[in-house]
Amino acid sequence: MFDLIAFDADDTLWHNEPLYAKAQDKLADLLASYADSDTVIQRLYETEVKNLGYYGYGIKSFTLSMIETAIKLTNGRIPGVEIEKIIGFAQDMLAHHTQLLEHVEETIGVLAQSYPLMIITKGDLLDQEVKLSRSRIGNYFQHIEIVSNKTEAIYANLLTRHKIEPQRFLMVGNSLKSDILPVIALGGHAVYIPYHVTWAHEIIEPQPGEHNGYYELEHIGQLAGLIEELGRG
Amino acid sequence: MFDLIAFDADDTLWHNEPLYAKAQDKLADLLASYADSDTVIQRLYETEVKNLGYYGYGIKSFTLSMIETAIKLTNGRIPGVEIEKIIGFAQDMLAHHTQLLEHVEETIGVLAQSYPLMIITKGDLLDQEVKLSRSRIGNYFQHIEIVSNKTEAIYANLLTRHKIEPQRFLMVGNSLKSDILPVIALGGHAVYIPYHVTWAHEIIEPQPGEHNGYYELEHIGQLAGLIEELGRG
Repeated sequence: MFDLIAFDADDTLWHNEPLYAKAQDKLADLLASYADSDTVIQRLYETEVKNLGYYGYGIKSFTLSMIETAIKLTNGRIPGVEIEKIIGFAQDMLAHHTQLLEHVEETIGVLAQSYPLMIITKGDLLDQEVKLSRSRIGNYFQHIEIVSNKTEAIYANLLTRHKIEPQRFLMVGNSLKSDILPVIALGGHAVYIPYHVTWAHEIIEPQPGEHNGYYELEHIGQLAGLIEELGRG
Repeated sequence: MFDLIAFDADDTLWHNEPLYAKAQDKLADLLASYADSDTVIQRLYETEVKNLGYYGYGIKSFTLSMIETAIKLTNGRIPGVEIEKIIGFAQDMLAHHTQLLEHVEETIGVLAQSYPLMIITKGDLLDQEVKLSRSRIGNYFQHIEIVSNKTEAIYANLLTRHKIEPQRFLMVGNSLKSDILPVIALGGHAVYIPYHVTWAHEIIEPQPGEHNGYYELEHIGQLAGLIEELGRG
């Protein structure tokens, strides 16, 4: 049925968004005497989106955006000693151990017996490599692809490079925008497994009819069963 | 003679180190009332090396290290408005157009007619992609490999993945530590083309005898000639 099964990593294999949310809350606390929490979070989001095109994804980009937000919201009055705390939030994030989602370890272990597996993830190169090496599941994956964005063109290029026909490719992830719709548009298959929180920039409203192209599961523990069913046709 | 010729990018294909040196000088100027230039540069270097293992290479890492250095050297007294200037230095670096070294364009154009070419570069994923897309030479390269470090193990893995025998592989670069010695250790070939400045962390003293394993050129314009000579054996 499939020549390759690929997985998004952040919030598909391991928890990620809560780390960002926690740092964001710490930033709001730090800036509480300058602005209310909603304002901090809104301004941080605007700064992140503005910077995305030249910083890209990941903790370092997020940190630079937190620092920029803190400076802007305080009209430059925030002292260095407070900015040092923001750098500390980042270092906590980087040091955090990788926490796998429930059912990931056994599901990946089972699928790896029958299919070549790949990770396709955005984010920072070193950061993602470190998370993978801490995850204990790295050896199940034949290929790790860390990309700067997940567009239809980037998936097409990646499949060509690996000599995989789109109709023999399955992508599994928690972002409709990044993991599901570009793969469906190429003629591939996709399984959408929502995570309980999604970064605002990744949220899109599914259009009527679009849902037909992909499968949706509640959790990754249901994936091996779905794939077996598909194989039986 | 070779099944693949790979090039380092920063300071081998395009100028890079001068951008960092310029930002470093701007930081020293900014902090002139707190510390002399040598102290700023020394402390920045120490901070960068300390952070390398978890930030990795690239402009964002460098920027976070500049901010951390500024905070430490001022005992946290530096105001946000000054740190904003440091973020500005980074944004200037990111916006800078890619400036190819002399002879790069014609050399790469000639070699691409006879050999598959690859780029193997450290640094930040998005940043390197942007520099390549601005360089006008991107189309000459069949593969772009952006890696978190350049060790013997990483080269070995990369050659296995591309099914290239080390003795049929040639690497060209400006860092003995990252581009030359690990490739020689694997049984590959390497051409060392020093750049006029090298980041302190990349500098190593060649040991007696080691020089035998690789070729050294003054500039990349001599590369096609060397490869032709090697082919005539």
